[in-house]
Amino acid sequence: MNSPLDRGGHVGRESFWTSDPYDLLKAGDDFTLADQATDAHSGFDGGKHDGAAALAEGASILADLQERLFAAGTVGDQRRVLLVLQAMDTAGKGGIVSHVVGAVNPGGVRYKGFKKPTKEELSHDFLWRVERELPAAGQIGVFDRSHYEDVLIGRVRELAPAAEIERRYGAINDFESQLVDDGTSIVKVMLHLGKDEQKSRLADRLDRPDKHWKYNPGDVDERLLWDSYQDAYQTVFERTSTEHAPWFVVPADRKWYARLAVQHLLIRALEELDLGWPPADYDVDVERKRLAAS
Amino acid sequence: MNSPLDRGGHVGRESFWTSDPYDLLKAGDDFTLADQATDAHSGFDGGKHDGAAALAEGASILADLQERLFAAGTVGDQRRVLLVLQAMDTAGKGGIVSHVVGAVNPGGVRYKGFKKPTKEELSHDFLWRVERELPAAGQIGVFDRSHYEDVLIGRVRELAPAAEIERRYGAINDFESQLVDDGTSIVKVMLHLGKDEQKSRLADRLDRPDKHWKYNPGDVDERLLWDSYQDAYQTVFERTSTEHAPWFVVPADRKWYARLAVQHLLIRALEELDLGWPPADYDVDVERKRLAAS
Repeated sequence: MNSPLDRGGHVGRESFWTSDPYDLLKAGDDFTLADQATDAHSGFDGGKHDGAAALAEGASILADLQERLFAAGTVGDQRRVLLVLQAMDTAGKGGIVSHVVGAVNPGGVRYKGFKKPTKEELSHDFLWRVERELPAAGQIGVFDRSHYEDVLIGRVRELAPAAEIERRYGAINDFESQLVDDGTSIVKVMLHLGKDEQKSRLADRLDRPDKHWKYNPGDVDERLLWDSYQDAYQTVFERTSTEHAPWFVVPADRKWYARLAVQHLLIRALEELDLGWPPADYDVDVERKRLAAS
Repeated sequence: MNSPLDRGGHVGRESFWTSDPYDLLKAGDDFTLADQATDAHSGFDGGKHDGAAALAEGASILADLQERLFAAGTVGDQRRVLLVLQAMDTAGKGGIVSHVVGAVNPGGVRYKGFKKPTKEELSHDFLWRVERELPAAGQIGVFDRSHYEDVLIGRVRELAPAAEIERRYGAINDFESQLVDDGTSIVKVMLHLGKDEQKSRLADRLDRPDKHWKYNPGDVDERLLWDSYQDAYQTVFERTSTEHAPWFVVPADRKWYARLAVQHLLIRALEELDLGWPPADYDVDVERKRLAAS
């Protein structure tokens, strides 16, 4: 790419956005999922190659901010970040974890992939297993699927009574509100994939023996319920895209764009914490002398 | 660098080693820590710039192997890898985590940094807190400090009776032997830093306000006990560098070399697992038809 400044502007510390994906992708009032393009690259005026270069620029920024968050945690700052990833199969959650989260020090990351609940998990409230996996102070937590499964597959597959599903939206809002009060910045992302693009990606997995392990016949079962899932997501946005923890719907047909957008949402969340470097809680000159004598 | 093949050879899947660091760095019989150079770059015929290029080559190899391990874990393979990192302060454990482990998908990594034990941890056997942080099947676990602290600072600072310290070497060997039997490949690394190099790195932290948070007056306290720590490490190697879980002593004055060497030890451990891609446990043609119809 040319200098990113040729076409973009400064949004936060990155140089390449034409406008802020935070505003463009946020699910606000009157948001309608069905109206959202899945192949857009909102806020970025370039293609795949430019996107890769931009991702590398953003990776350095994100790594620096993450180190500041971690440093703050070592001196008692209670703040932390939680990235929640939801999507239909093949939308690219794994790629986000690998290419976006993978750019920061693993020592400051707490990753949790949520699977089908175990018997023990099912014997507790749906938030029980989630509360056990929250990031500690100074960490970036990553939920690869989350408590939202309980109002997505839970709703589509009627895994709980309708009244219980209804109750969960409010319980989620209360839970997240408490997390925010306690110092967690929550970044909720739905990777919005096109139905045709999913078909192509699933076909690719079937065509490649090195990808067979990633394919599961259940993926097609869920695909057959596509419209029900889109409806369930729409309800999630209406009920849980709150002031304190809004949802972002990221077009995901272009993997490079989805990565860049999620990277930006993390960068922005970290920038809002206005993180400096913790000052010395010791006398620097005294320590210089002790070190010199050692 | 020129084509790495110009000067190196193929050691495992990497192209750039002149001889295998596994053999060069292993603490075998008659190993003497005091005889080991801290500024060597054993097995690699090049400098910092070459080392960075080589690390990038190795990163791709490691990422591929890690994905295979993860894939195997999804179909019931119980194998896993545990990297144990020990070193004096500033030796570069954090850089290994960031630059070596950071090259693989965070979704397949379980990282744990062990701090000074809590009251609750102290109320249990010294292995109790370690057992709770072991990697699951398919994961790469990383211990940033470990149960070896209990025979390092534990010995130097006399934090437990001498008989208890003595007992621990055997307990560690039994514990690790059990882990290996259960499918864990253990890679134990001591980053071997020179005393002068440590002084320089600590001075750098004192000179840079953005590094002040990384400095702790206790670092000089430990530094004053340098020789006792070297003795304690020597004993660790004599007592716990076993056939099933040998120690590797990695020269650490050159950060680029230490990263490259640890990366290789991980690559080699993964290569030994001879990991293919899990075959489909469904009928690929049937699924192609179901997908096409969906």
